Amino acid sequence: MRTVMVLIVAAAAAFGIAGFVANGAGSQRSDSVPQYTVQNQLVRPQNYREWIYLSSGLGMAYSPNPNSAPLFTNVFVAPEAYRKFVATGTWPEKTMFVLEERAASSKGSINQGGHFQGELRGIAASVKDSSRFPSKWAYFNFGLDAKTASPNPPESCWNCHNAHGAVDNTFVQFYPTLKPIAMKFGTYKPKE
Amino acid sequence: MRTVMVLIVAAAAAFGIAGFVANGAGSQRSDSVPQYTVQNQLVRPQNYREWIYLSSGLGMAYSPNPNSAPLFTNVFVAPEAYRKFVATGTWPEKTMFVLEERAASSKGSINQGGHFQGELRGIAASVKDSSRFPSKWAYFNFGLDAKTASPNPPESCWNCHNAHGAVDNTFVQFYPTLKPIAMKFGTYKPKE
Repeated sequence: MRTVMVLIVAAAAAFGIAGFVANGAGSQRSDSVPQYTVQNQLVRPQNYREWIYLSSGLGMAYSPNPNSAPLFTNVFVAPEAYRKFVATGTWPEKTMFVLEERAASSKGSINQGGHFQGELRGIAASVKDSSRFPSKWAYFNFGLDAKTASPNPPESCWNCHNAHGAVDNTFVQFYPTLKPIAMKFGTYKPKE
Repeated sequence: MRTVMVLIVAAAAAFGIAGFVANGAGSQRSDSVPQYTVQNQLVRPQNYREWIYLSSGLGMAYSPNPNSAPLFTNVFVAPEAYRKFVATGTWPEKTMFVLEERAASSKGSINQGGHFQGELRGIAASVKDSSRFPSKWAYFNFGLDAKTASPNPPESCWNCHNAHGAVDNTFVQFYPTLKPIAMKFGTYKPKE
């Protein structure tokens, strides 16, 4: 047993994972700031479902092509960054978002219409970390079982977020509880 | 100024509102257990958006009639109850859920298809509180600006939750991260 523990600790150290503190929802968690491997990969956050929920979409599309199998998208932000945003209307360094994709079902149990959420189909993350990324924000897509991810090239996420994000590379226009906060602090840039 | 403070405290006391602790996301909050007025009305939780998110639906319908203007529904549960559920697969006394309805939009900013969330359209809550409600769970609908709500009659919510909830009057069949926890603890009852 001790050998297993030592191996786990060694593996965690090799991947640059600071020890996760499993102290439940709502408390300070070491995975709510970005952790990286020595290869500059982002370590997948473990407890993002206990972060602050911002909003969901179903089949959102940024091009006119219809989405044949629409997925739900749920957006979460780390609690520390959320608190700072509520207090200032801006995102601090080390802000981390997770976007989760889930299957949409219509029939199941007593439900007969509309759509409800099912199995996980994808996880993406964004971080604001100027000390590591010259373009300030970086974007990552995790495979369903991947524990780490490399930054995406700018054309896959950064360019659009930078051109169209209402607040500092983030789509606050789609987060109904954050939009009035940003407007109050004058940090909301109406963008099309 | 002192007079105003006294009036506010007196008003809060009259409504049976224990002082809300505004200490931000993630910390223990006095509004995450149910608070009641002397008339047995539930006080609307202020910080439910900082609770634990469970899932969203769009236009979910329990009857075959099509929903002409589908709304998003977001479900949150108080952190203390969530922690207990993760550890045991059961809901403790004083568990509180909030179900939020939001408008669904398709066109806006860069979005051209699917649906994203907009303004608040309704708030409902459920509580498990055997000491106050003989049927254990009670259900409440808040008007958009209402600070308190009376329990709904059983036929509006309780009957269906009791007949079809997979875990103790709750629709865990629609909460994809909780379903495997309940199955692990043997508290999941497959229901149609």
